[in-house]
Amino acid sequence: VTAPFLAVDWGTTNRRVFLIEDGKVVRTERDDHGVTAVAKGGFEQEVAGIRARFGDLSMLLAGMVGANIGWRVAPYVPAPAGIDELVAGLLRIDDRTAIVPGISSVENGRADIMRGEETQFFGALAAGLAPPDALLAQPGTHCKWAEIQNGRVMHFVTAMTGELFSLLRKHGLLAAQLGAEVTLGDAFRAGLVEGRKRDLAASLFGIRASFMLGQRDDADAASYASGLLIGSDVAARMAETSHEIVHVLADPALGGLYVAAIEANGRSARLVDSHSAFVAGIIAIGEMM
Amino acid sequence: VTAPFLAVDWGTTNRRVFLIEDGKVVRTERDDHGVTAVAKGGFEQEVAGIRARFGDLSMLLAGMVGANIGWRVAPYVPAPAGIDELVAGLLRIDDRTAIVPGISSVENGRADIMRGEETQFFGALAAGLAPPDALLAQPGTHCKWAEIQNGRVMHFVTAMTGELFSLLRKHGLLAAQLGAEVTLGDAFRAGLVEGRKRDLAASLFGIRASFMLGQRDDADAASYASGLLIGSDVAARMAETSHEIVHVLADPALGGLYVAAIEANGRSARLVDSHSAFVAGIIAIGEMM
Repeated sequence: VTAPFLAVDWGTTNRRVFLIEDGKVVRTERDDHGVTAVAKGGFEQEVAGIRARFGDLSMLLAGMVGANIGWRVAPYVPAPAGIDELVAGLLRIDDRTAIVPGISSVENGRADIMRGEETQFFGALAAGLAPPDALLAQPGTHCKWAEIQNGRVMHFVTAMTGELFSLLRKHGLLAAQLGAEVTLGDAFRAGLVEGRKRDLAASLFGIRASFMLGQRDDADAASYASGLLIGSDVAARMAETSHEIVHVLADPALGGLYVAAIEANGRSARLVDSHSAFVAGIIAIGEMM
Repeated sequence: VTAPFLAVDWGTTNRRVFLIEDGKVVRTERDDHGVTAVAKGGFEQEVAGIRARFGDLSMLLAGMVGANIGWRVAPYVPAPAGIDELVAGLLRIDDRTAIVPGISSVENGRADIMRGEETQFFGALAAGLAPPDALLAQPGTHCKWAEIQNGRVMHFVTAMTGELFSLLRKHGLLAAQLGAEVTLGDAFRAGLVEGRKRDLAASLFGIRASFMLGQRDDADAASYASGLLIGSDVAARMAETSHEIVHVLADPALGGLYVAAIEANGRSARLVDSHSAFVAGIIAIGEMM
């Protein structure tokens, strides 16, 4: 596709549409029509609506729109996988509409999946935002870590770091202590140090005990807990890899926390804008269709 | 106290009263009048009610009744602590009513607390159910691990293993998969192996991915998750201790899971009945008052 086309990053709760002309985004729109907000059978109408607003063009969709809770299932492409395999695995809805598949992995008895992040990872590589041999991270509710060789996803691991933080913040013993905003300061860094022990269930109880014994200003508990969870994720990943540099695809706030955690583990990190990566990825896939 | 007395194990949600004569339990009663079920200012009346039913005797109380959510605060005794320090730290309400204090610890910047378990630990030692140099574990919502030297609690660690399991079972991505009962079988043991990686956030996501890829019978997911959480707690503790034997204070069901986890980590384990330990502990404290 070198002609103008529409790219849709269609996640669980949000959706972003890009009109792409000459390899550049000329118009974009973000809304909360994530796949869970679309009624069963409502996707055709949503897609028609996008074309009505943006132009009657070819469309390439990525993310949860291709999952069992989405429009139609685009089966996972097994790792190791490069962009070629991804393009070969496109689910073609009709001759001008396709869904990018996710990637799956089963290694040493442990299964993993990604759907949506693959487009950003290949985009970061295609745009030269990360080298063809790299360790890429995409922090979030479910943080994805992908080991890239020759531009191909060889291994990847998802850690539900963000989800654990959110569960602890909303429910259970620590919830009352974890309401504050997370900031990148001393408490977060102390959490990173504790996180290196990789002893999460015990380290988390320490937050309660510190409160009961008056050992830490409770306003810092959320930052400490975030440092603990991120630090423990990062420490586990760094133990598995020899990469000296990690490329982190994220917004500056969350990305900054991961950069600090990676540096606290003796490696260096570079922030990559995840929206630019997505656009580069979907353009690269579009050009290969 | 060699005369008959009343011992009360008064926890957050449950309460158990023991009438003790000649060093033996002659009558016991369990109800759901845990401290959270007692209105502020209602403890005097509850205690009077116990004496009306069991006899107008001296009373020794242990557990959350001495916490800030209980009757009156019995301040923590700092570790290292033996039964002598515990007795010296008794909170005397009047000349025949006292609350056993908990134990606190602050070591290398990590705080910890216990309240109630100390009575069971010292009871296990007093009754010869565990030797004076031992590693004791009390599994539960918050699993307590205590390193004992010469009958004194030197160090202890609490891991919120049971609480994490309960949070994951009720909320979030994995909740729908974790409804089944936990059994001590192959799935639990596979979880133990994964748990040894001490990479909880990533291992937990594997449960979701295994389901999506059809890699594990989903009826086994709860047992696998339990093995993962318990295995990761046990692996962390075993890395810190050289004890070859762990004494596990628990009922046979939960205790059996911990025994299996300890054995999977190359150590051996002995189950100690936690009710007997509590009774022995409260009698030992009563005799020293």
